[in-house]
Amino acid sequence: MTERHLLLRTLAGEQTERPPVWFMRQAGRYLPDYMKIKDKYSFFERVQNPDLAREITIMPVDQMGVDAAILFSDILVIAQSLGLQVDMIPGKGPVIETARTDAEVAALNVDATQDFFKYATPAIKSVKEGLNNRVPLIGFAGSPWTLLCYMVQGQGSKDFGEAKKFIINEPVRARLMLEKITDATIQYLKIQINAGCDVLQIFDSWGGILSPKMYSEFSLPYIERIVKSVKDEVPVILFAKGAWYALKELEATGAAALGLSWTTPASFAKKICKPETVFQGNLDPSILLAKPDAVALATKNMIDSFGSKRHIVNLGHGVLPQTSVDSAKAFVDTAKAYRY
Amino acid sequence: MTERHLLLRTLAGEQTERPPVWFMRQAGRYLPDYMKIKDKYSFFERVQNPDLAREITIMPVDQMGVDAAILFSDILVIAQSLGLQVDMIPGKGPVIETARTDAEVAALNVDATQDFFKYATPAIKSVKEGLNNRVPLIGFAGSPWTLLCYMVQGQGSKDFGEAKKFIINEPVRARLMLEKITDATIQYLKIQINAGCDVLQIFDSWGGILSPKMYSEFSLPYIERIVKSVKDEVPVILFAKGAWYALKELEATGAAALGLSWTTPASFAKKICKPETVFQGNLDPSILLAKPDAVALATKNMIDSFGSKRHIVNLGHGVLPQTSVDSAKAFVDTAKAYRY
Repeated sequence: MTERHLLLRTLAGEQTERPPVWFMRQAGRYLPDYMKIKDKYSFFERVQNPDLAREITIMPVDQMGVDAAILFSDILVIAQSLGLQVDMIPGKGPVIETARTDAEVAALNVDATQDFFKYATPAIKSVKEGLNNRVPLIGFAGSPWTLLCYMVQGQGSKDFGEAKKFIINEPVRARLMLEKITDATIQYLKIQINAGCDVLQIFDSWGGILSPKMYSEFSLPYIERIVKSVKDEVPVILFAKGAWYALKELEATGAAALGLSWTTPASFAKKICKPETVFQGNLDPSILLAKPDAVALATKNMIDSFGSKRHIVNLGHGVLPQTSVDSAKAFVDTAKAYRY
Repeated sequence: MTERHLLLRTLAGEQTERPPVWFMRQAGRYLPDYMKIKDKYSFFERVQNPDLAREITIMPVDQMGVDAAILFSDILVIAQSLGLQVDMIPGKGPVIETARTDAEVAALNVDATQDFFKYATPAIKSVKEGLNNRVPLIGFAGSPWTLLCYMVQGQGSKDFGEAKKFIINEPVRARLMLEKITDATIQYLKIQINAGCDVLQIFDSWGGILSPKMYSEFSLPYIERIVKSVKDEVPVILFAKGAWYALKELEATGAAALGLSWTTPASFAKKICKPETVFQGNLDPSILLAKPDAVALATKNMIDSFGSKRHIVNLGHGVLPQTSVDSAKAFVDTAKAYRY
C-alpha cells in the first residue's frame, strides 16, 4: 500500500525509524545508463515517450535504492505548453523563445495546456506500472517566477538581469505573465495527480536571487495559489533555493514540507518554523564530488543536524553532472543505514 | 581634511546628515570612457600603470559624484603574486593557472609579495594625488577562500565544485594554501595602507556558496586574521556575499562595517548584530538595469529600510556591465539627496 511508504509517512508527520532519502536530479545526468539513452534520443523524446520516461525515472530506484522516484521531465515544459519554443543545446543548456512585449505575453496560451500535456498521463501511468508500488512517485513543476526567468531571459543566467529588469519596468505585464504561468501550472499538476503522482514538488530554483521585498511581490503569491490548489489532494514539497528569508511565508502556504538550501542550516529553519514542519535537504551537492567516505561523514552530520524526525534526506540543490555513482551511493546508503 | 569625509565619519560611528554612497565595481565596466581605455590597454596594464590606474579610479568620482574612490585593480593579483599566471579573456572572464597538487601548493611563493607589488605604491600615490583629498580612497583584497576558489577551479564557476572537492578531499593542503594566501594578502594590504589607502574592503565574493559549517572552517578564520592585522591602522569593510548566516561572526572580527547582499534585509542584519554596527549595501545590482525613476524609488526604499544612521549606500554586489550611466547616476543622486 502506497500509504505505508516512508516518504509519505514522513510527509504526514509520523515518527519513522529513519529518514527517507531521494535527491533532486536523481534521474539522469550522472548515471552511465542514462547517458546511453541521452545519446540516442532528444531531451523531449525522453520526457514524452512513456517507455523512455519510465526507464529513466525508475533507474535511480533500481540502481541507487532511493525511497522515491521523481518523474523525468523539466520545469520548462510549461514554457512549451504556453507556446514558446524550447531547445536543449548540449553543452549550453536550454534556449527558450522569449516573451517580453505586450503582444508576446498576450499570445501565451493557457487554453493549450490540456492538449499539450496529453503525453503526460500515459507517461506517468507507465512509470507507476514500472514502479509497481515499490516507492512513491513525485511529480513537479517550477514556480511561476522561475519560469518567468527563463521565458524573459531566454536562457540560463547567473543573475537573470533581463528578467528582473522586466518585472521592475513592466510590473503589470509581468503579473499577467505570472498569472498565466500559474494557471497552466495548476492544470498540469492536476494532470500529474490524476495520472498517479503521489507527491508534488514545486521548484523555485531562482527564488533566492530576489530581494525579500521582490520575492513577496513576484514569487510568493503565485506559489501560494498553486499550493492551495493541490495540497488537499497530495502533499506538496516546496523548495525555494536560497530564499531563507521567506521560510515563514512558505510554511504558511500549507506545503507539507519545505526544501532547504545547503546554506540554510537546520538550526535556523527550526527556529523560524513551527515544530511540526517537515524539512527536506540539505547537503551541498558539491560535497558529492568528494570521496565516498567523506560523503558518508558529511551526510551523517547533516542528518544529525535535523534531529530525530520530520526530515527527508536530500541535497540542497540538484546533483551535479560530474558526480560519481559511488559518491552518490554513499549519500543514499548513509541515509538508509541511519537509525533515529 | 580626510578625517572629515562622510564615509570616514560613518565608519567611525558618527551621526551624519545623509549616508555616503559608492558602489562596487564603480570604476570600469559600464562607463563609456573606461571602455575606450579598455580597448587600448590590457587589464593588468590598466591596473599597474600609475596614470591609467589614476584615471580609471577617479573617473566615477568625477562622472558619478560618489563619496569614495576604490582603487582600480582585481582580487586575482594575489594569485599572480603567489606565482600563478592569470589571463583576462574578453567575453570569458579570468583564466587562472591552477594550484592543486602538493608540489603546486608548495610552490606558491609568499616571499615574492613585496617584489610583485612594487607597482602598487606609485599607482596608489598617483591616485591619491589626483583625488587631491576630495574623497577617501578604498583599497581592497579578496578573501582567502574566494582566492582559493579561482586558484583551484582555474576560472569562474556557478558552484566552484572543484574548489569544494579540493577542500573536502585535501583539507590539510587546502589549509596550507589558505594560510599562504592570507600571508600574502596581509602584506599587500599593508602596502596599500602605507601608500595612502584610507579604508580597506575585503571581498568574500564566494563565501555564500559554502554551508555555514564549511564557512566557519575554510573562510572565516582567514578573514579574521586579515582584519585583525590591519584594523588598527584603517577601518575595514567586510563584504561576504550571501553569507547571511555568519553575520555575527563577521561582526566579531572587528570590521568597521559589514557589507550586505540584497537578499539579506536590513531588518535581519540589525536583529543579529549590535546596535552600533555599520552596514553597507544593499540594492540588487539588477535593479540598476531598470529605468532611472524606478531606480530612484528602489534606492530610497532601501535607504529607508536601514533607518537613520550607520549606513553606507552601496549595491549588494558589483554593478552589472550592461547598466546605463543614467540609472547608476539615479542611484547615486538619490543617496546624495537623502536627508536623515
